[in-house]
Amino acid sequence: MSQQKPLILVSNDDGITAPGIRNLIEAVRSLGEVVVVAPDSPQSGMGHAVTISKPLRLNKTDIYGDILAYQCSGTPADCVKLAVDKVLHRKPDLMVSGINHGSNSSINVLYSGTMSAAMEAAIEGIPAVGFSLCDYAYDADFSLSAQVARKIAQNILDRGLPASTLLNVNIPKLVAHEFKGIKVCRQAVAKWKEDFDERVDPNGRKYYWLTGQFVNNDKGDDTDEWALANGYASVVPVHFDLTAHHAMPVLNSWDYSLS
Amino acid sequence: MSQQKPLILVSNDDGITAPGIRNLIEAVRSLGEVVVVAPDSPQSGMGHAVTISKPLRLNKTDIYGDILAYQCSGTPADCVKLAVDKVLHRKPDLMVSGINHGSNSSINVLYSGTMSAAMEAAIEGIPAVGFSLCDYAYDADFSLSAQVARKIAQNILDRGLPASTLLNVNIPKLVAHEFKGIKVCRQAVAKWKEDFDERVDPNGRKYYWLTGQFVNNDKGDDTDEWALANGYASVVPVHFDLTAHHAMPVLNSWDYSLS
Repeated sequence: MSQQKPLILVSNDDGITAPGIRNLIEAVRSLGEVVVVAPDSPQSGMGHAVTISKPLRLNKTDIYGDILAYQCSGTPADCVKLAVDKVLHRKPDLMVSGINHGSNSSINVLYSGTMSAAMEAAIEGIPAVGFSLCDYAYDADFSLSAQVARKIAQNILDRGLPASTLLNVNIPKLVAHEFKGIKVCRQAVAKWKEDFDERVDPNGRKYYWLTGQFVNNDKGDDTDEWALANGYASVVPVHFDLTAHHAMPVLNSWDYSLS
Repeated sequence: MSQQKPLILVSNDDGITAPGIRNLIEAVRSLGEVVVVAPDSPQSGMGHAVTISKPLRLNKTDIYGDILAYQCSGTPADCVKLAVDKVLHRKPDLMVSGINHGSNSSINVLYSGTMSAAMEAAIEGIPAVGFSLCDYAYDADFSLSAQVARKIAQNILDRGLPASTLLNVNIPKLVAHEFKGIKVCRQAVAKWKEDFDERVDPNGRKYYWLTGQFVNNDKGDDTDEWALANGYASVVPVHFDLTAHHAMPVLNSWDYSLS
């Protein structure tokens, strides 16, 4: 009996036609059998949204030639759920998400559709990783990112991942000779300082665009932000048990009697 | 100089007219000055989505009488960001989200708009808590939930919360005399098993509704699922550092050289 090739599910949040996902498909296609299920339109900032108030569409597309590919009207998390339930006939050996056009380091992991696709796969028990290039440009140079993605994907296929853990990989906007290597990091303590852009529509009514400034308050040299600022790609292991175990003793000291 | 009353921001994901938020406002209004900024339409399942591809509307409404209230066209996370940047003139002392119509226990914390509003507030440094009643009905009985919400809110105002920690509070569908009390818990290890409902539209094309079954694989008696099944309200401390620190040694043993 011949050994099956690893089954690799690919998704993203920039949409199925984005250069980032095209580069990711190319980076991993020789590692196994690739199946793509990705949003039919950009879904940046969708976080871990799922679509429950309207139905979903799922349509086959031949844009990636002989690679089986579907575009879905839902969110990145929807894409993974549909792939698992309706497209794939066995559990994938690996799920890769991205390559995102723009950073998903630090607190951005929470807002990121790219990472929510990977997290949804991890919840399903599929070894999963999200890749993001720190360059928002449509025509960004994905060559270094593709090399990093291939190396990480190969590692996961060879060694697996610790239980209930996925990876958040960010790649700096550098060319190969400036690149220092890959570094395992923790999520930096940072946030967005909102600054809504207030405008007035042609009917005289106000509206707001979400803008803001990323503020890194973390001085550590073991964070993803430090790594990216110093020429490294960052690998942050991520889990989805959000319990703040360290806070439990304090909370157990509270008075909970209802009057 | 008179002491200022605590400033309490209220939001939710079921929309500003939902009975759950009305009950929450009533529960906390005597604890301080209440300001409401909530979605103008239901936003269940929005996870930590933010709106970046279209502008937001923010409109004052008098549905809560003398309580300052705004409805927003965005997600729960957008509501909190807009409240902080455009509505409030000082940092709130407390942010309360809900009361959600339906459970947000266990893995649902990731998909929950209710919890993402609270998490966004916590990222802003505001002590925050999300409340959910394990009853999806529009006309659910919120009386026990309101008592629990008031008690937890009072505790937070009196004692604060550990740094970078918010609370996920779920209340069982019980009447007061069946209720056993409030229990501090960890997030249960559970997942949704997808089962998309496949249908055909009047034009003969397939579409899918997301449905599924909640599967709790966690036998522990220290989880939120255990508490809710045994007559308790669950309080899970939640944090937004998703780093799986325990996985770092394994990942540091990998080969990361690019060929």
